[in-house]
Amino acid sequence: MAQILVLYPHPTDPEAFDKHYFGVHADLTRKIPGLRSFVVNQGAVSTPQGEGPYHLVAQLNFDSIEALHQALESPESQAAVADLANFAPEDTQVFIFDNHDVM
Amino acid sequence: MAQILVLYPHPTDPEAFDKHYFGVHADLTRKIPGLRSFVVNQGAVSTPQGEGPYHLVAQLNFDSIEALHQALESPESQAAVADLANFAPEDTQVFIFDNHDVM
Repeated sequence: MAQILVLYPHPTDPEAFDKHYFGVHADLTRKIPGLRSFVVNQGAVSTPQGEGPYHLVAQLNFDSIEALHQALESPESQAAVADLANFAPEDTQVFIFDNHDVM
Repeated sequence: MAQILVLYPHPTDPEAFDKHYFGVHADLTRKIPGLRSFVVNQGAVSTPQGEGPYHLVAQLNFDSIEALHQALESPESQAAVADLANFAPEDTQVFIFDNHDVM
């Protein structure tokens, strides 16, 4: 598996953020070719010390790092990336990595 | 599902970090009761701009947020948490959240 991990800091207007995220951005994301699962937190993203800096943690999983890189070149992915400018806080972080089970 | 997400920044000595992580910490982690899957990156954790600030991204998945909170109170989990002091960079981040599939 391989993953795109997106950490969205607390937005100024959480209600507007959620409306755009679940009303527009999630639909664009689901269209990305090769996407195997798409998971987001419900409820708070806590830390052991209490409330954390992030409002939303999104995890997009692909079969392999090759499938992920291919997906990133698709028009569907480019549309989702372009949409970030419409709602994502400036310091949103995106990480891309190959993943393996060590259980 | 619910997740413990751990972001380890680049350590001063990556080789020593990996040795401890995979030789000691992963074994302690696998013993945590209720752990359903345990996934870490292989290769770099990239960003769209290039190299990112993290060496290792660990994802520990549990059936539910209740199972996760129960796990956190176990001696096995406390042993794994105590071991962080032996190898984890100071600004290691730990996040805890309930997760749901929006695919």
